[in-house]
Amino acid sequence: MTLLIAWPGSEAQTRGLAATTGSSIIELQTRRFPDGEIYLRLLSSCAGQSVAVVAALDRPDEKTPGLLALADALRAEGATRVGLVAPYLAYLRQDRQFNPGEAVTSRTYARLLSSTFDWLLTVDPHLHRYHSLSEIYSIPTRVVHAAPAIADWIGRIVNLPLLIGPDGESAQWVSDIAARINAPWTTLEKTRRGDRDVEVSIPHIDQSRGRTPVLADDIISSGRTMLAAVKRLREAGTPTPICVGVHAIFAGDAYDALLAAGPRIVTCNTIAHPSNEIDLSSMMGAAADEFLAAKPAH
Amino acid sequence: MTLLIAWPGSEAQTRGLAATTGSSIIELQTRRFPDGEIYLRLLSSCAGQSVAVVAALDRPDEKTPGLLALADALRAEGATRVGLVAPYLAYLRQDRQFNPGEAVTSRTYARLLSSTFDWLLTVDPHLHRYHSLSEIYSIPTRVVHAAPAIADWIGRIVNLPLLIGPDGESAQWVSDIAARINAPWTTLEKTRRGDRDVEVSIPHIDQSRGRTPVLADDIISSGRTMLAAVKRLREAGTPTPICVGVHAIFAGDAYDALLAAGPRIVTCNTIAHPSNEIDLSSMMGAAADEFLAAKPAH
Repeated sequence: MTLLIAWPGSEAQTRGLAATTGSSIIELQTRRFPDGEIYLRLLSSCAGQSVAVVAALDRPDEKTPGLLALADALRAEGATRVGLVAPYLAYLRQDRQFNPGEAVTSRTYARLLSSTFDWLLTVDPHLHRYHSLSEIYSIPTRVVHAAPAIADWIGRIVNLPLLIGPDGESAQWVSDIAARINAPWTTLEKTRRGDRDVEVSIPHIDQSRGRTPVLADDIISSGRTMLAAVKRLREAGTPTPICVGVHAIFAGDAYDALLAAGPRIVTCNTIAHPSNEIDLSSMMGAAADEFLAAKPAH
Repeated sequence: MTLLIAWPGSEAQTRGLAATTGSSIIELQTRRFPDGEIYLRLLSSCAGQSVAVVAALDRPDEKTPGLLALADALRAEGATRVGLVAPYLAYLRQDRQFNPGEAVTSRTYARLLSSTFDWLLTVDPHLHRYHSLSEIYSIPTRVVHAAPAIADWIGRIVNLPLLIGPDGESAQWVSDIAARINAPWTTLEKTRRGDRDVEVSIPHIDQSRGRTPVLADDIISSGRTMLAAVKRLREAGTPTPICVGVHAIFAGDAYDALLAAGPRIVTCNTIAHPSNEIDLSSMMGAAADEFLAAKPAH
């Protein structure tokens, strides 16, 4: 038997994984002491079992010490292997020093997870200069790609889509989605003036008049790029645009601000959010099953 | 030269330590990315220097991943040694399993700090079943005791004090403070019904009529014990009681609720708080100096 445990906030994804893997779910009791320390208790046995903790790692700091303590507790209780399913994996952004004195947080974070978990499964990690998680993670890792599920959703729901990626870096990803459903694609030309201040233009939009613009990005964080693009598209008189994201960060008022501009907003269920509509449970479950079923390497 | 860096929230303590150690302070720039990741940048060089990070570890989870990344960054930038001055140290409470399946978080937390820092200095850690930090911390540790500074403050400010400890466990600590100023002491008899629900009685209070009650505790967390004791004392018609704590946690509305009951409230400056009045900088500085000046053990 294999077991799953939901970190608070990832209960729905954990139920989805349980349904596709045939794993059982162990309940976890958590509370905070007055000084902010976390209290954790496993409410059933994991002895002799292969276990995966499921935790979306948005707002990673408040979750991480407890996650590491949970893994230690599972091992102390006799789990044979303890893996981490992090549908969203944080700390990939600061992958080198851009300015003197900067902490390369991605390496510290990879060290913490690698020292504690036996394996790591995630969805579309936001890699820039690293080519693979194995450059920083010393444990086995596997990446699930959301593109097939996104393409499937667009193909079923949208007539005559025009895929639009947020920047040149996204060209390969967006063109892959577009190719799967024989749709045209383009990318925004973007001038970023800070985390929240973005100007965009949309090349070749005239050639696709009448098509439904589908803005696709791996992470919707501040949402400013999408918001600027939606406004441009509405000015250009396109049909109501659709915003598709893998990871629904939506910091602060990002979701409300984007909704107010009128697009349909759809995300994958990596971070629990009202916009979740594309279910990656079966793809993640298949990948998790391989890790869960593997024998301990002793 | 030796260097200090303040984690956000511990700037005042760091300045106090700099004044007593003769260390310089390096400025640290921090901000959060939209997904909650922390960004850290050292604004001057630490190459070839012995460095101490100063961080009160109340609300430990939100601080810990960044603290570990900061230590890694200091080392990457050439610091010869990187220590941690944690005037308040968290994660000592859950020091064994009280119920099956509980995570012994103190061990995980000690592993994280020990794998990252060269030494640890703290004030009056809330040890119950551990006798010494060295049972769980594998790095050199040193403990500063606040009792002499508390006794000094009471001796200077309070006429005819009666020291009152919160429970039998505090008897040794309270009697030590009392002995330093030739004051009588007692402890509350306490029935705890949860983190926030406490009933108390005060033995022998009649024999000390006219004395000023000084309720002394190492941590003021929910403040419920102190609040119940203050109410009992006022009912008994004592002079206005004084509440003295080492660590000013004051979760939620604890400070306001205690203030409303009328006592004077005084704490040590381990966690920055409006009640800080007993300055431990010189005691902590002396202990930090020994660590900072030590040669790297290679």
